[in-house]
Amino acid sequence: MYAIVKKRRQPKAEITTVNTPKISNKQVLVQTKMAAICGTDVHIWDWNEWAQNRMKKIPLTIGHEFTGEVVKVGEDVTNVQAGDIVSAETHIVDGTCYQCRTDRMHICQNLEILGVDTDGVFAEYVVLPERNAWKSPPDLDPAISSIQEPLGNAVQTVLPKDRIEDIAGKNVAVLGCGPIGLMAIAVLDTLGAEKIFATGGGRNKVRMELAKKSGADMVLNAREEGENIVKIIRDSTDGNGVDVALEMSGAPSAVRQAFEILTPGGRVSLFGLFDRPLEFDVNNAVVFKAATIYGISGRRMFQTWYQVRGLLSDSRFRKKIASIVTHRIPIKDIAEGMEAIHSKRAGKVVLEPKWE
Amino acid sequence: MYAIVKKRRQPKAEITTVNTPKISNKQVLVQTKMAAICGTDVHIWDWNEWAQNRMKKIPLTIGHEFTGEVVKVGEDVTNVQAGDIVSAETHIVDGTCYQCRTDRMHICQNLEILGVDTDGVFAEYVVLPERNAWKSPPDLDPAISSIQEPLGNAVQTVLPKDRIEDIAGKNVAVLGCGPIGLMAIAVLDTLGAEKIFATGGGRNKVRMELAKKSGADMVLNAREEGENIVKIIRDSTDGNGVDVALEMSGAPSAVRQAFEILTPGGRVSLFGLFDRPLEFDVNNAVVFKAATIYGISGRRMFQTWYQVRGLLSDSRFRKKIASIVTHRIPIKDIAEGMEAIHSKRAGKVVLEPKWE
Amino acid sequence: MYAIVKKRRQPKAEITTVNTPKISNKQVLVQTKMAAICGTDVHIWDWNEWAQNRMKKIPLTIGHEFTGEVVKVGEDVTNVQAGDIVSAETHIVDGTCYQCRTDRMHICQNLEILGVDTDGVFAEYVVLPERNAWKSPPDLDPAISSIQEPLGNAVQTVLPKDRIEDIAGKNVAVLGCGPIGLMAIAVLDTLGAEKIFATGGGRNKVRMELAKKSGADMVLNAREEGENIVKIIRDSTDGNGVDVALEMSGAPSAVRQAFEILTPGGRVSLFGLFDRPLEFDVNNAVVFKAATIYGISGRRMFQTWYQVRGLLSDSRFRKKIASIVTHRIPIKDIAEGMEAIHSKRAGKVVLEPKWE
Amino acid sequence: MYAIVKKRRQPKAEITTVNTPKISNKQVLVQTKMAAICGTDVHIWDWNEWAQNRMKKIPLTIGHEFTGEVVKVGEDVTNVQAGDIVSAETHIVDGTCYQCRTDRMHICQNLEILGVDTDGVFAEYVVLPERNAWKSPPDLDPAISSIQEPLGNAVQTVLPKDRIEDIAGKNVAVLGCGPIGLMAIAVLDTLGAEKIFATGGGRNKVRMELAKKSGADMVLNAREEGENIVKIIRDSTDGNGVDVALEMSGAPSAVRQAFEILTPGGRVSLFGLFDRPLEFDVNNAVVFKAATIYGISGRRMFQTWYQVRGLLSDSRFRKKIASIVTHRIPIKDIAEGMEAIHSKRAGKVVLEPKWE
Repeated sequence: MYAIVKKRRQPKAEITTVNTPKISNKQVLVQTKMAAICGTDVHIWDWNEWAQNRMKKIPLTIGHEFTGEVVKVGEDVTNVQAGDIVSAETHIVDGTCYQCRTDRMHICQNLEILGVDTDGVFAEYVVLPERNAWKSPPDLDPAISSIQEPLGNAVQTVLPKDRIEDIAGKNVAVLGCGPIGLMAIAVLDTLGAEKIFATGGGRNKVRMELAKKSGADMVLNAREEGENIVKIIRDSTDGNGVDVALEMSGAPSAVRQAFEILTPGGRVSLFGLFDRPLEFDVNNAVVFKAATIYGISGRRMFQTWYQVRGLLSDSRFRKKIASIVTHRIPIKDIAEGMEAIHSKRAGKVVLEPKWE
Repeated sequence: MYAIVKKRRQPKAEITTVNTPKISNKQVLVQTKMAAICGTDVHIWDWNEWAQNRMKKIPLTIGHEFTGEVVKVGEDVTNVQAGDIVSAETHIVDGTCYQCRTDRMHICQNLEILGVDTDGVFAEYVVLPERNAWKSPPDLDPAISSIQEPLGNAVQTVLPKDRIEDIAGKNVAVLGCGPIGLMAIAVLDTLGAEKIFATGGGRNKVRMELAKKSGADMVLNAREEGENIVKIIRDSTDGNGVDVALEMSGAPSAVRQAFEILTPGGRVSLFGLFDRPLEFDVNNAVVFKAATIYGISGRRMFQTWYQVRGLLSDSRFRKKIASIVTHRIPIKDIAEGMEAIHSKRAGKVVLEPKWE
Repeated sequence: MYAIVKKRRQPKAEITTVNTPKISNKQVLVQTKMAAICGTDVHIWDWNEWAQNRMKKIPLTIGHEFTGEVVKVGEDVTNVQAGDIVSAETHIVDGTCYQCRTDRMHICQNLEILGVDTDGVFAEYVVLPERNAWKSPPDLDPAISSIQEPLGNAVQTVLPKDRIEDIAGKNVAVLGCGPIGLMAIAVLDTLGAEKIFATGGGRNKVRMELAKKSGADMVLNAREEGENIVKIIRDSTDGNGVDVALEMSGAPSAVRQAFEILTPGGRVSLFGLFDRPLEFDVNNAVVFKAATIYGISGRRMFQTWYQVRGLLSDSRFRKKIASIVTHRIPIKDIAEGMEAIHSKRAGKVVLEPKWE
Repeated sequence: MYAIVKKRRQPKAEITTVNTPKISNKQVLVQTKMAAICGTDVHIWDWNEWAQNRMKKIPLTIGHEFTGEVVKVGEDVTNVQAGDIVSAETHIVDGTCYQCRTDRMHICQNLEILGVDTDGVFAEYVVLPERNAWKSPPDLDPAISSIQEPLGNAVQTVLPKDRIEDIAGKNVAVLGCGPIGLMAIAVLDTLGAEKIFATGGGRNKVRMELAKKSGADMVLNAREEGENIVKIIRDSTDGNGVDVALEMSGAPSAVRQAFEILTPGGRVSLFGLFDRPLEFDVNNAVVFKAATIYGISGRRMFQTWYQVRGLLSDSRFRKKIASIVTHRIPIKDIAEGMEAIHSKRAGKVVLEPKWE
């Protein structure tokens, strides 16, 4: 079958043919119907420092966001059958470590990631453990179905725990308008946030536009407004600041702003990754402010999937998510998708299984 | 000034004139701009058994849902000033009991209720403790502004605690389509519920229609469908049942259904009041199902008010709430409002301050 | 091997020999070192109405509380090895239903229970799915190790969810002093409860004594004190009542008392099972009081097991639990153990693997 | 009356006489029975940079930790009466800001602190708003009664929110063994923590000893063990690391260790203050670890006071807290108390009201 394989420890990857994989008793074989490019795939494609350190197994089929049809199931599989349309939870877990035994499977101590540690979805067929196959509505647009996994990240950033201060009537800021930031805006708008502020680097006009469409009440250009952002947001919230700040950019200035605009006792989700250690005024940002901070890694398994399913049952939400998908291209043209992302013209890029 | 006063321990109440009240240091005087009839007012008007036992002080000006303009403030008042548009938190609390000292002011051990224990809002002017005056947006439709207090009840029923399983993507049933039931449906729809099921006695076609408009995905006539309701809801939720059931009718059959349609581990809010003790299969309804039950009394002070304010910033939500207000009549015609409620033709009835 | 088998649909069970069971890939074979009699075993032994309805598969080896040594593991088992000392989580779950996928495995939709639906632990050897084998400290007294599962029930009753109002400095009542009620008292005392009130039927003097030893500050004889209990507890809590009430008796009068002694906004855990539907004043017990009620079924998997492990690391706690084990007898004398329980002379009865 | 007054913007303070203060309607006058020195008092005494920036009003009577007897109450005071023994909640709040209205009074936007913004307790008499007077058991040792406020800080650090993962059976590290760190150890031990690790700078042998007495299972000398601490703690927790880490030292190395020893998904409380901004590896410390961080400022009003009261009902806990009070000296010798703290010979220093 065709697959996009990282064959060498250097930039890019090759479209090539490999053996169609075999399944064991508790696995399922899925035919890819649509895949999507994640930021992680871009790092692996670019072969940046993170990718060089993280990727152990080469050659490897890359990609992890997708939807497909189950074509075969192992003999001990009970919950999925041939013909089911599924998406993949990409975290493959051991099920028995301390974290798995205490409702934190998504940060399993022996976590493997599809398309990073095991052969991924940029291929005609992919093997999933039964547990990782998430049944999706057959009538859902495959482009949307294929990005349920990052949608789960957006939900996790908004609602990091099951029992948490709800969003209803809260003022929220989303710092960073990458695809998952945009999704978070759409999630917040659907969950009854009062005012949603979005900030972005401002170089990617497409994303600033999409922030507005996704439900942001105010989109601020971090590059132009600078420190003024803090004043603008305070003035728009009776001087209280926001209840919730979601750092989704990885920019040091955004982290600082997240805490400056936060109302005392508010909460911050840290989703973005940083190029280097941050210098941080802990006293004023965290201690005196009695702030709560959540590090966001992955998605609760499988609470976030149910939440995504529920959100996708809302037609307005689906429309917003569809608008974030700016490019639908044949998978053979993946290099063009990477280029669209690099040149900041793209929201989310999905890949149709056209190999020739 | 004019006021509607319960003068005798018998049905109805009189429109009469009384002295305009005076304020003390920490109180404010408010001129009524719009009031609304609550179910409690109907009980007091009808002088049913509950009212006979509950009302200690007669004569008393009745009514507690309203909006008005502050015309005078006591000398120690710091947070409100003349000209402010306010609504009333109707629970007057001591601030120092165990409940008040532990974030449960709304169930204060020495609670007094406006219009039940102290002179109420069906009058030209009313006195409020500063704490109970909630500043509202001046440009909000007074009919909506006057019903923020019951909207807070709806929010409390949906989200009984600050840190609770959120509504996002959950299936929810609302049993009972009285005004607060309808408000709860609108709240749920705005908070991202997946499917909203509403059940009602079916005699009040107006309310069944409003349930649909408020955001219910399926409105079931409890009278016609009977036990079939359980099957219908199970079938519509992959066999799981609902995650959240809100009992808002006070009907024994509805309580039983609430638990039958509940998914194991789900939660039930009990808001409706019952004419007599219930017979209840605790083993199957609660224990084996690992259900969580919340008794709902009042509204968290003042978290629910902020949530209501946030929800009202959404134009779709405001429109739904406006549709629940079916009658706007002069306060002098209050008897007609009571009649509209008795004859089941009404959603919410609001009273304009026209006394002559 | 020897086993105690329910061979016929009638009272008692037989000590007999059966084939030593075989394991599949993800199972382990365990040699029983100590077992314990649960209330469920008593029901099955007595063949009461519940048992007649619940038991589908006959003949069946009964028993589920135990500790033993792993003697063999299936080829896909990774987490347990021969020589490990384990206890059994007795809930065998499917792992893929809605409840299992959302951190509520203990109320799996397709739950099977060891010794009720599958062959149990009153035998020389027992088969466990790998997931259900809980590794225990080898140096822990086997009598205590064998009752970690009901200890988990006690923890679940005290702390029904992961994120809940803590026990520190709270006043708590335990209504019912059966073995798990006694364990709950010991748990509460170890978690910093302020005052612990215990109530019991008063016919079982052994248990009333043990309640005191387990940490109860006041032990009340429900039979003698009757309604006076409410007054006594209110007077001992500044008139506030208790913050937490644990119903662990299955007595209708105890449920009523649980709500009467509860402070407004307090919480009640319902663990006891009732012979028939209860009549219940929902308005006053639940709604006006803004009470929260938790139905308790099983134990969170595996949060409660970690909590039990932590509690057992405290020598004072271990001593209390040891005192609850009043009888250690050879398993061949199980009939005597049943008799000790019936005659209300026993706390917990454990069974040594002596078959001849 | 006698008082210790900061008269000039320079180190130390003077014992002098001032007018006995008068009370308004909602205030109470309290005669000091015992006071205690807080770290804040040391800063003010030393007149360090923080104190120079923070103190606005000079001259001012300093001190805020104390217990005393109410000698007079204002005419609107309803909850306290002459003869009551009280301690002070030292946060004076407005009661109407966003934080006060949403159960976060302790981080009021217009917060004033006793002895920092208003005249404090190092005097023969002190004025308190009724709300800030906390009635204490008359038979409690005044030395313990006077330090309930910092005990509340310890509880807040251990349990930063009302509904939080409980401590039962969790492994916990306390980094920093100052008086509140020691109190936190005693709290943890009373709440059923599994293993308690304490780390300290190691120069203050008294405190390392007290950590052991307060309930630490392992006391590690940060100076001697250095990075080895991480390995030691991991090895003592099955390789999982701690569930909860409390940073109570203000040392940058301790913050880093707090995150290194944390199990994925664990939580960290930040109580210590830092001399300068920290450099911080956000990716590994927070994001990938899905850590939750709580900034700790003050104490929930008044949940923590009830928790402290409950904890103090336990005689073992009281004994531990008593052992932390290493110095009881006449208030006229306050300079000696400051010296004992500076020279690291002290746990907690309490001041008897002996002025001559």
